[in-house]
Amino acid sequence: MELLKERILKEGKVVSDTILKVDSFLNYQIDPQLMLAIGQEFKTRFAQDRVTKVLTVEASGIAAALMTGLALGVPVVFAKKKKPSTIGGNSFVGRIKSYTKQEPVDIVVGDAYLQRADRVLIVDDFLATGEAALGLLKIIEQSGAHLVGVGIVIEKLFQSGGGLLREKGIRVESLVQIAALRNGRIEFAAG
Amino acid sequence: MELLKERILKEGKVVSDTILKVDSFLNYQIDPQLMLAIGQEFKTRFAQDRVTKVLTVEASGIAAALMTGLALGVPVVFAKKKKPSTIGGNSFVGRIKSYTKQEPVDIVVGDAYLQRADRVLIVDDFLATGEAALGLLKIIEQSGAHLVGVGIVIEKLFQSGGGLLREKGIRVESLVQIAALRNGRIEFAAG
Repeated sequence: MELLKERILKEGKVVSDTILKVDSFLNYQIDPQLMLAIGQEFKTRFAQDRVTKVLTVEASGIAAALMTGLALGVPVVFAKKKKPSTIGGNSFVGRIKSYTKQEPVDIVVGDAYLQRADRVLIVDDFLATGEAALGLLKIIEQSGAHLVGVGIVIEKLFQSGGGLLREKGIRVESLVQIAALRNGRIEFAAG
Repeated sequence: MELLKERILKEGKVVSDTILKVDSFLNYQIDPQLMLAIGQEFKTRFAQDRVTKVLTVEASGIAAALMTGLALGVPVVFAKKKKPSTIGGNSFVGRIKSYTKQEPVDIVVGDAYLQRADRVLIVDDFLATGEAALGLLKIIEQSGAHLVGVGIVIEKLFQSGGGLLREKGIRVESLVQIAALRNGRIEFAAG
């Protein structure tokens, strides 16, 4: 997605060899028009898949997921991060390692919001180690719903998440793939 | 906003005399079309106010704020909830009491995302005790930006937040006002 690449080059900040900050349009500050375009692009890519629900994790996945749901005309469900002690019954739960906080966190979806008949598209802003997606996968498995695929705004190809998901036979569509962050520069994957 | 009232009557769950759950279209699960309509309604109400930024708090405020930013053609900024120990420099911070968690939490916006010249519209899903809005107010004060007003999807009139804000001379626009939750029933304010 050229529009997104340009924006990443213009405003992205390479913090280290693994961390890219795009706080000015994707996290912290969100550009609604860009998100609308991102939602439409995911719609195009998953148009044939009879998606019934878009699933994401709070908080930074919500914007892209919402616009994808708008484009596809389906509801958006977001998993909440909770301390294990606060989780009530009737919930699907996936335990993940927080990428930034280093401690395990449970992500939770009320069982009313995913049904066996659902065809679910996972949408998230970043794919790095894949923890969030793997947690959402567990939630989908518990619900008995069908996973259609995973839509990612920015994939860091040099981390293991994309590989892990694809090895499981899961379709991953990333709008932008970053091959490396080196010497403060962003190297996109070819294509 | 009639569309929203109907939806609340149809799907809202009165959990207690103070708590209304609208998890099926506003939290947990989000109806993107309804959010689009909500964003357009806020645009209509604040059309003359030259808003330059929409401000909210993660996570459940993001959807309404994003659609308001889309309608107004301005960026959306969301404050993040953080433990005090993790807050770096160059941030505006407001301390609030968490309504559900009962412990203080800091909400934070990087200082790059609010400028003195900004005309800010706060958007949030609920207005109850007003903690989130008051925290955002502190953040706006620190930035020197101008607060245009507060747009709320559902205001619980029987709690103190709306009164506190209006006493400060702040314009509060609520799409739906709930006068009481009594015996499991929702009583809307007149008008």
